[in-house]
Amino acid sequence: MGKSELFGRDLICSQEWKKEELDKILELAKKMKKDRFSPKYTKLLENRTFFMFFYNPSVRTRQSFECAATELGGHAQFLEPKTMRLKTEKTAGETVEDAAKVMSRYACGIGIRILEDKISYYGQGDELLREYAKYASIPIINMADDKFHPCQGLADIMGLKEHLGEDLKGKKILITWAHGALARSWCSVQEAALICSRYGMDVTIAYPEGYDLDPEVMEKVKKNCEENGAKFEITHDVREGYKGAHVVYSRNWMSPNAYEGGEFHKQEEIEKALKLTSWICDSEKMKLTENALFIHPMPIDRGHEVTDEVASGERSIIYDVAENRLHVQKAIMALTMSERL
Amino acid sequence: MGKSELFGRDLICSQEWKKEELDKILELAKKMKKDRFSPKYTKLLENRTFFMFFYNPSVRTRQSFECAATELGGHAQFLEPKTMRLKTEKTAGETVEDAAKVMSRYACGIGIRILEDKISYYGQGDELLREYAKYASIPIINMADDKFHPCQGLADIMGLKEHLGEDLKGKKILITWAHGALARSWCSVQEAALICSRYGMDVTIAYPEGYDLDPEVMEKVKKNCEENGAKFEITHDVREGYKGAHVVYSRNWMSPNAYEGGEFHKQEEIEKALKLTSWICDSEKMKLTENALFIHPMPIDRGHEVTDEVASGERSIIYDVAENRLHVQKAIMALTMSERL
Amino acid sequence: MGKSELFGRDLICSQEWKKEELDKILELAKKMKKDRFSPKYTKLLENRTFFMFFYNPSVRTRQSFECAATELGGHAQFLEPKTMRLKTEKTAGETVEDAAKVMSRYACGIGIRILEDKISYYGQGDELLREYAKYASIPIINMADDKFHPCQGLADIMGLKEHLGEDLKGKKILITWAHGALARSWCSVQEAALICSRYGMDVTIAYPEGYDLDPEVMEKVKKNCEENGAKFEITHDVREGYKGAHVVYSRNWMSPNAYEGGEFHKQEEIEKALKLTSWICDSEKMKLTENALFIHPMPIDRGHEVTDEVASGERSIIYDVAENRLHVQKAIMALTMSERL
Repeated sequence: MGKSELFGRDLICSQEWKKEELDKILELAKKMKKDRFSPKYTKLLENRTFFMFFYNPSVRTRQSFECAATELGGHAQFLEPKTMRLKTEKTAGETVEDAAKVMSRYACGIGIRILEDKISYYGQGDELLREYAKYASIPIINMADDKFHPCQGLADIMGLKEHLGEDLKGKKILITWAHGALARSWCSVQEAALICSRYGMDVTIAYPEGYDLDPEVMEKVKKNCEENGAKFEITHDVREGYKGAHVVYSRNWMSPNAYEGGEFHKQEEIEKALKLTSWICDSEKMKLTENALFIHPMPIDRGHEVTDEVASGERSIIYDVAENRLHVQKAIMALTMSERL
Repeated sequence: MGKSELFGRDLICSQEWKKEELDKILELAKKMKKDRFSPKYTKLLENRTFFMFFYNPSVRTRQSFECAATELGGHAQFLEPKTMRLKTEKTAGETVEDAAKVMSRYACGIGIRILEDKISYYGQGDELLREYAKYASIPIINMADDKFHPCQGLADIMGLKEHLGEDLKGKKILITWAHGALARSWCSVQEAALICSRYGMDVTIAYPEGYDLDPEVMEKVKKNCEENGAKFEITHDVREGYKGAHVVYSRNWMSPNAYEGGEFHKQEEIEKALKLTSWICDSEKMKLTENALFIHPMPIDRGHEVTDEVASGERSIIYDVAENRLHVQKAIMALTMSERL
Repeated sequence: MGKSELFGRDLICSQEWKKEELDKILELAKKMKKDRFSPKYTKLLENRTFFMFFYNPSVRTRQSFECAATELGGHAQFLEPKTMRLKTEKTAGETVEDAAKVMSRYACGIGIRILEDKISYYGQGDELLREYAKYASIPIINMADDKFHPCQGLADIMGLKEHLGEDLKGKKILITWAHGALARSWCSVQEAALICSRYGMDVTIAYPEGYDLDPEVMEKVKKNCEENGAKFEITHDVREGYKGAHVVYSRNWMSPNAYEGGEFHKQEEIEKALKLTSWICDSEKMKLTENALFIHPMPIDRGHEVTDEVASGERSIIYDVAENRLHVQKAIMALTMSERL
């Protein structure tokens, strides 16, 4: 019994971990999926507390993290900052330094989710996580911020390996913008582009003019592709990217203007996006692919991001990927927080 | 160690289970009450997650279900749809199909509570539960919907058996409307009428003109009574039903007009009900009975539904019945969800 | 295995417990801190439920109580009365008697927090706790009310013993009012004055004219001091009390006029307090002390109650005291609620 060499590590973006380290998570997650309630795993966080800070609500993330802690024998506390007195620009309250230092005395790790309407400029959520990480002596796990979503990225890779085989090199993923009624953050698609390129996949990103993602992240994806001998492409054609794809990832995201003037223009973003009705993943476009798998981080905005026919079709692996959130999160928590491995 | 033959079953209304199956729950609940923290029971859901969906708030149901999971070694997640992004008629979000299928990957069961102001017509809450049940591969447990409340019904029967003896045949229960300030759903009283008639009790339902319950449910109660050689009566006289009763169940419920026009007319219902001040269970009326027990699913609207004298009197078994919620729910969860029985 | 002689006891104010009883908590807390996850402690509340009622939100209290239950093998249910239907003066709902009697059937203890804006006169919160205690057959633990905060007081003493030695006799604590933007309740400072005087410390309370604390509580502090041969002083000079102090406790509190007319005048209180800018604990004032420790129950309103230099300085023991909340609460729960000691 002891700690892994990953004990104490923060996980804010998969890009900041070595590929061998990501592999360790995926290997353990695979074992944990196979032998879910084995006594090897059910005591790893016994009597330990994991704090979950939800600045934004969530279905999947809440459920899967709280389950993960339970299955490891521990307990995840569901905390919403609105019921707490944390300092903000406008209100007196506790500094992140004080909060993080005290929480480090109580818990084995902290998960944080912050995105969309809880921030006033792109990147602010990610900055908050890094401020917590600076002061906490326990791991900070990104449960989705405005830039990255490493647990989703790892669950994606785990699902792709299950369906395409362990070696993803040479497989092409199309990450395509979709219209929709939610004005979604960039975290899931950026994380997918980063981690798929780390695993050697060809990455094509398709979106209408005016929907550029973070140029710094795109630069990293490009570099990842170069280092792995993979192709990186951006296209503004709604069909082009489907050709030759082994995986299609169709999802809405907000435009770079969403926070103009320091406010989140949710309604404008939704109205603008809803007009681009051709940007939906449907059977006709899927026919252009190499019998591609369909993946999505869920929840799906059906009828906008993808048709029911594709989302519920034979090649959709959405539920497997959603399940994998649980397994990769268990593995992350075990490796970074358990002293009983 | 293994599963019971009830493993995987939904429990939406007691009427949909065979009497022998209900007996199994009651038998196990009785054992669990006697030997509450026995190691026979404390590992039955170890490391397992039970999701509780509260569309409506609750005291007793939340507390007793979360306790039940804890006492079986598992964990109940408290989820409120308002902090989640589920699809409704008006908002983009996740379909019940997607939610149920993913949750089936994470948890061993799902409890759902929906009634009163969270629906726009009678029956809509029950429909939602059945939609979850259609897509989930794990048991759906009704934690009170607008039509039924099986856990309450089972706790009622358990309490009555404790105080009247195992055989309830020939005992008379009066279920009487009471005035009050809450405009309550029909679930508890309908469930009580259904399950008491299954257990051979004579059932009298008393209410002022204009407060009919669901005619389909009443038809079933009548049929249950016929099959068991028991009497079924409806009366609009405030005193008549008390005569010869062994059990009095006094509770407010809304009128069939409560959702007219697709809206819940809570205030009108309350105002209308509060005028009918003679409809209160008091000592004077209780004198007409065969020294009847007083039961109520709680919380009680004291001073409206019943006087303090009766509610806190010697023949009141309200706290025993409330405690039984815990035991029957533990038994339900063990039988439908445990793989370690 | 069995119960301590403190089993079943309520803890609403440390003053109501004998010093030998408080010592028992502190001794066990010390052992639990040293050997935090020892199997001696991790089964003490196994499968047991502790209810936490938060009429007011909280960071530290929620986190530390829920952790405490987890580390003892039990589960703390986080309950907010707003999501429940408890009776208030204005609404129908459940009486405290009914709620307390049913909860006593489900759980091993109940923690309650109520202060500031959830009451309409000073003392009302404390009265509510005593009403719960009257009807519940399980311990009621004060998680901070408008008068007292025994868990904080015990954590303070534990921290002071760690840094000043076991015997606190003859050590001087200055409890000083500070300006700030929160209009805080009197519970923490009153509890500190009471418990420090029980442990033989000289107590000086400093505050501007118009900020008197509860005269009955002050009378008790005075009497405690007399019984222990310690000094008790009140000063309205911002500097005087610092002289000779071994411990400085700087914190904002509301004036006795805060609830005038039955309403909480939060904004007026804050505005009035913010004008008294000299009432801040800073390095210059700390130089007057005997190299005093700085303590505070947190969250700190930095820049108002204390400068960053002092709060984050070498003599600040705020994080140790915050950590001690966990340990004393574990000890309290073990001694009053466990049947497996």
